[in-house]
Amino acid sequence: MGVRIALDAMGGDKAPSEIVRGAIEAAGREDGPERILLVGHSRDINAQLESRGISPGENGVLEVREASQVVEMDEAPALALRRKRDSSIKVSTRLLASGEADALVTAGNTGAAVVASWLVLDRAEGIDRPALAAFLPVGDGYCVMVDAGANVDCKAGQLAQFALMGSDCVRTYLGLDRPRVGILSNGEEKGKGNSVTVEAAAMLEELGRRGSVRFEGNVEGRDIPRGVVDVLVTDGFVGNIVLKTAEGAVGEVFSALKEVLSRGWATRLALALLAPSLKGLERRYRHSSYGGAMLLGVKAPVIVAHGSSEGESISNAIGLACRCAAGMRRNTPRMTGGFGASPSTEA
Amino acid sequence: MGVRIALDAMGGDKAPSEIVRGAIEAAGREDGPERILLVGHSRDINAQLESRGISPGENGVLEVREASQVVEMDEAPALALRRKRDSSIKVSTRLLASGEADALVTAGNTGAAVVASWLVLDRAEGIDRPALAAFLPVGDGYCVMVDAGANVDCKAGQLAQFALMGSDCVRTYLGLDRPRVGILSNGEEKGKGNSVTVEAAAMLEELGRRGSVRFEGNVEGRDIPRGVVDVLVTDGFVGNIVLKTAEGAVGEVFSALKEVLSRGWATRLALALLAPSLKGLERRYRHSSYGGAMLLGVKAPVIVAHGSSEGESISNAIGLACRCAAGMRRNTPRMTGGFGASPSTEA
Repeated sequence: MGVRIALDAMGGDKAPSEIVRGAIEAAGREDGPERILLVGHSRDINAQLESRGISPGENGVLEVREASQVVEMDEAPALALRRKRDSSIKVSTRLLASGEADALVTAGNTGAAVVASWLVLDRAEGIDRPALAAFLPVGDGYCVMVDAGANVDCKAGQLAQFALMGSDCVRTYLGLDRPRVGILSNGEEKGKGNSVTVEAAAMLEELGRRGSVRFEGNVEGRDIPRGVVDVLVTDGFVGNIVLKTAEGAVGEVFSALKEVLSRGWATRLALALLAPSLKGLERRYRHSSYGGAMLLGVKAPVIVAHGSSEGESISNAIGLACRCAAGMRRNTPRMTGGFGASPSTEA
Repeated sequence: MGVRIALDAMGGDKAPSEIVRGAIEAAGREDGPERILLVGHSRDINAQLESRGISPGENGVLEVREASQVVEMDEAPALALRRKRDSSIKVSTRLLASGEADALVTAGNTGAAVVASWLVLDRAEGIDRPALAAFLPVGDGYCVMVDAGANVDCKAGQLAQFALMGSDCVRTYLGLDRPRVGILSNGEEKGKGNSVTVEAAAMLEELGRRGSVRFEGNVEGRDIPRGVVDVLVTDGFVGNIVLKTAEGAVGEVFSALKEVLSRGWATRLALALLAPSLKGLERRYRHSSYGGAMLLGVKAPVIVAHGSSEGESISNAIGLACRCAAGMRRNTPRMTGGFGASPSTEA
């Protein structure tokens, strides 16, 4: 059975046009989903489809589901969700809860996606609050950074929960058996860190001794791209800053590169020769780092794409959602107790 | 009168050879210092000079000063400094305190440099603890990030002090009259941040109303390279992680770039054409971000270079030290009261 995606067609700075474009792109892929449920104002969505030469109902993969309201990007999440019971994000989570969809993709208000999922979906046991996992591309795989921005003030126990949620996420969705976990810190030596991360490291060492987690210690920022761990634990304040800083630094390098390359005739020639390779690289490094995050703490895959996502990012987020949903069928989630409850979840 | 530099010749992973190499390079520059005091084991330093064809005493700029001990890179700073009273870092700070040198450069144990400076040099009034400022290249100037790693757990009042110290640093050393100050946060909107940065922002707004600081609000990681502020405030845990993450991300891009460029004949040709430009760019972005930090909270310029510094970085650090020492002569430091004392230090 193929994967069915609930897609919040109204969420994002460029919704619905770029969201619909991404859906069409994903629908055309050989390994794409069996069905994409485009959730939102059906009139707007159908107009977008028609403008791209697709008659509503004609395509076997794309299907429109009506939702009469939209949570705007700058609205306070909890209040907006209470007021807008028929919003596209809420209808999307209901499709996931009812089993009509296997995974959810949204580029809308992140807070609203987190709150709606937490309220509507089944929660992982033993978890106090949801978190966001960013999938950082590392070699052929990913390093999953938790938390990417949902919780700005964290206690040590929360960081330990992030480690367990992240491990479960990697096991379940990516099929990796004993994911390596590290804490992002200002030095790799034991004892380095602020008071919260030092306390969290001690907790994770204890959990490691009990076999609940494979803790590798501290990880420095410069070692992230080297793939030294599969799960990188940090609070949402630092996680968010780190992702945006990397994005900014990489963008700056590409801008400078293009400027330098357009100076002399020889380098302009080189630029022409290189254009395709450069574009591929830039796509990989500039946006992927912050392109898609997954909500952890609920028992179904929810992918939160960047608010500024264009068609390609949405298509990639749908691809990640398919991969996660397929992984979930193969690998039953093992997290039954979470932190502090029944730690011996390892086989 | 030219600038005289005290250079810790024994500090750093590649000391003394690369330190001496950097000193020779800086001494050969037209706008270089009047004198560089190479502090450390004179026999080792002289051997390094001779191996590069320079007879001790012959060169007018380079001068060797004996220090019989070395604080190793992994030693506990306070203890090491108590035990090694004749260490190269301690002797260097004494040369600065006595007025024999105008600025100090070290690539040695950062903690030891901080503690030695704090103990030996005159302190800025109203400051509780020293901090490290990283000079991030932005356009033709710098964005000064405080703290780059000296204080991992910070209260809001400390962040406010970092803002004042950073402003004074930029005014004194770079001659910028009313430096713009921002707090690194997970969103630029007012109210975004963790509990400590939100409280610090409120303090800085109040100091801004009193004219002690020019506070511009929150700054996101991706906006750092755009030069939106002159002083970027953060705690040393986040600051250190941010610097290393940017370094890692940029390094990864250059590695990937070189790999992509060495695949086909056309791109190999392009790579050959581009090699000089690429090298320049890489130098600028890969190392400069963490190449040199300045100690704040003392009344003299102390530059702490990266432990892995090679000759070129040391030469650049000496250049920064010269610029700061010259700036200090032109612009008297205005910070008399620091945070909470006499805030109306603006003219």
